[in-house]
Amino acid sequence: MVPFSEVTNSMKPSPIRALLALTQQPQVTSFAGGLPAPELFPVKDFQAAVDAVMQEAGPTALQYGTTDGWAKLREQIADRIHTKNGIDCTADDILLTAGSQQGLDFCGRIFVNPGDIILMESPSYLGAINAFNTSRPGYIEIPTDENGMIMSELENVLANNDNIKLIYVIPDFQNPSGRTWPLERRKQFMEIINKYEVPVIEDNPYGELRYKGEFLPSLKSMDTKGLVIYLGTMSKILAPGIRIGWICTSHEILEKLNLLAQAAVLQTSTFAAMAVSKYFEMFDVDAHVEECRQLYAHRAATMVQAMKDYFPPEAKFTDPDGGLFTWVELPEYINSKELAEDTLKQNVAFVPGDGFFPNGGNEHCFRLNYSCASDEQIVNGIKIIADCIKARLK
Amino acid sequence: MVPFSEVTNSMKPSPIRALLALTQQPQVTSFAGGLPAPELFPVKDFQAAVDAVMQEAGPTALQYGTTDGWAKLREQIADRIHTKNGIDCTADDILLTAGSQQGLDFCGRIFVNPGDIILMESPSYLGAINAFNTSRPGYIEIPTDENGMIMSELENVLANNDNIKLIYVIPDFQNPSGRTWPLERRKQFMEIINKYEVPVIEDNPYGELRYKGEFLPSLKSMDTKGLVIYLGTMSKILAPGIRIGWICTSHEILEKLNLLAQAAVLQTSTFAAMAVSKYFEMFDVDAHVEECRQLYAHRAATMVQAMKDYFPPEAKFTDPDGGLFTWVELPEYINSKELAEDTLKQNVAFVPGDGFFPNGGNEHCFRLNYSCASDEQIVNGIKIIADCIKARLK
Repeated sequence: MVPFSEVTNSMKPSPIRALLALTQQPQVTSFAGGLPAPELFPVKDFQAAVDAVMQEAGPTALQYGTTDGWAKLREQIADRIHTKNGIDCTADDILLTAGSQQGLDFCGRIFVNPGDIILMESPSYLGAINAFNTSRPGYIEIPTDENGMIMSELENVLANNDNIKLIYVIPDFQNPSGRTWPLERRKQFMEIINKYEVPVIEDNPYGELRYKGEFLPSLKSMDTKGLVIYLGTMSKILAPGIRIGWICTSHEILEKLNLLAQAAVLQTSTFAAMAVSKYFEMFDVDAHVEECRQLYAHRAATMVQAMKDYFPPEAKFTDPDGGLFTWVELPEYINSKELAEDTLKQNVAFVPGDGFFPNGGNEHCFRLNYSCASDEQIVNGIKIIADCIKARLK
Repeated sequence: MVPFSEVTNSMKPSPIRALLALTQQPQVTSFAGGLPAPELFPVKDFQAAVDAVMQEAGPTALQYGTTDGWAKLREQIADRIHTKNGIDCTADDILLTAGSQQGLDFCGRIFVNPGDIILMESPSYLGAINAFNTSRPGYIEIPTDENGMIMSELENVLANNDNIKLIYVIPDFQNPSGRTWPLERRKQFMEIINKYEVPVIEDNPYGELRYKGEFLPSLKSMDTKGLVIYLGTMSKILAPGIRIGWICTSHEILEKLNLLAQAAVLQTSTFAAMAVSKYFEMFDVDAHVEECRQLYAHRAATMVQAMKDYFPPEAKFTDPDGGLFTWVELPEYINSKELAEDTLKQNVAFVPGDGFFPNGGNEHCFRLNYSCASDEQIVNGIKIIADCIKARLK
């Protein structure tokens, strides 16, 4: 047979998806995925919303629709991100996607030629790296500290490279680091971006899941030049199995994204979009999100306390203000892949850190997810990881 | 801002999607789209299936799932295409997609580098052209007659070009031509393909909608070398608004498609896939498809009779054995775009033919869809088109 394309040769299996298969076994405590707690899903309410849609407009829900997606849901999203994230927009500024992941794929494709450079926080979301890899870019990682991307480093890279096509950031409760950019840094970032005029993906899947501190304005809310592409999703505030996310950006960029969406999938599910829209209409989404926040805040606190209690002082970790993840840095001589093998023998799983660095390395780091485990699982799992770390200390 | 990618520059708006916006107006009789008749959608049954899923396994339906898609549905699809299309396969040979369109996008991306050649029937499905365009290929069109692709022409092209990466065909009730390949031609095709070993997309959205004649074996059922990538969809036998399709192919190709699906969308909707699976389990899908067949057969016959009654002899058209479309060829001096403007003034819409040829031209052809119009609309619409054709005859 003829060879596959160069795109195909650039693809690697996600270490998370491979690990998730292993962690399906019931005896395994998994801190590996980023799954929402299934007990939080509003099953009955969502079922009632679906029933209402089918009764009121069944044939419309089952028919083809427009590429930009069900208009009512786009309105509701525009209202919500205006209220929650300070973004001044309407339904016309939004494209529905089959989850944020599709937004990442589309953005990579409309901006990046092979060999172009994408900037990312170091570390960053490995699903974004996977999505962008199909455009065969190079990556420059911008160093981070406990407050996220270091802006002097960003400016330095922008000043010294001329083929940077895209910047990808997660300012709120970053995956994997759990870190959040303070307001001052967001302002600095937008000043730099306005100077260099490079498009920015602001990926904000966890923004509503803040447990501590004040909500901060999104980058998009400070965007005066139409450079920010804001990605949101229903996956963390409602449910990921429905596959509804969105992109909010300038009409210039949205027009290209719409063309690509048309070519790639025709449209997002009318049925799913109408069901989500009806759910927003019928139920108190804020009350539901508050429930999610409380459970995740508790689980985050439980994990952080367990790490304080059991981890040796050589292990540094994030105490996140929201989101689903914490990040652990060990002495450089400890390899987190080997550590993961140790803990998996005792039925505890996590994702080693190197997959979150587009240029690899950093094998002494790893990511922990707490959203999908019980208190007992968290405490016992952290004890096991702690013992395995200690056994590898020099 | 930085320029968009070369991919972006290769994208054009679909003339159908643009036209569909115009034809939303209630006074317009549209033969333009390819929409299933909404009165056929099994709204109550599908709602019952969704309810059953939510009651039995709500949290699973709303959670992330595997990239290949809900296993039970893949089993049911494997059983169905074994029975209906003679394809010997299991759930492991199938990847769920968000409609066939996504299958087209994925296949283009895993096989085609910029400048590589794709072969297609002349004319072919414009959505496939749009999907493949993002890989920036060249196209060679293989001439067709009333029995589809002409095999001597195919062999000639394969013998004289060495960068052909993909062949795209629709052997059953082709979109847009309404033509079907006879058995002998399918056999010839597979002989040629086995000789040149080029991967083939067999797109079969309409296969179950046969009104006349015998069902013929799919190309995939005759594929001994794992070269055929079979695309199917729920859009025409159940409903397009759910966005569930599938790819059935060899493990070698499926592995690459899975990697790309993981990067591009993580997975198809768990919720939609489980609902469709439950619908297949609870209801008699064959009886539903038979209902669809009867209505579409009637509408096809109504349109063909009206064309016989009113079109001038200079207009040649297909009498389709199934599917949703017929295809009209006028004398070469009549431009179907201008004709479409004439008829739209009288509130009748169709899609001009040039968009169905990847290299353009052929403006004297056009496509008619009959699945979504009443008998009265069909007869009156054809009368109007006939008058407009006559007015342009020399």
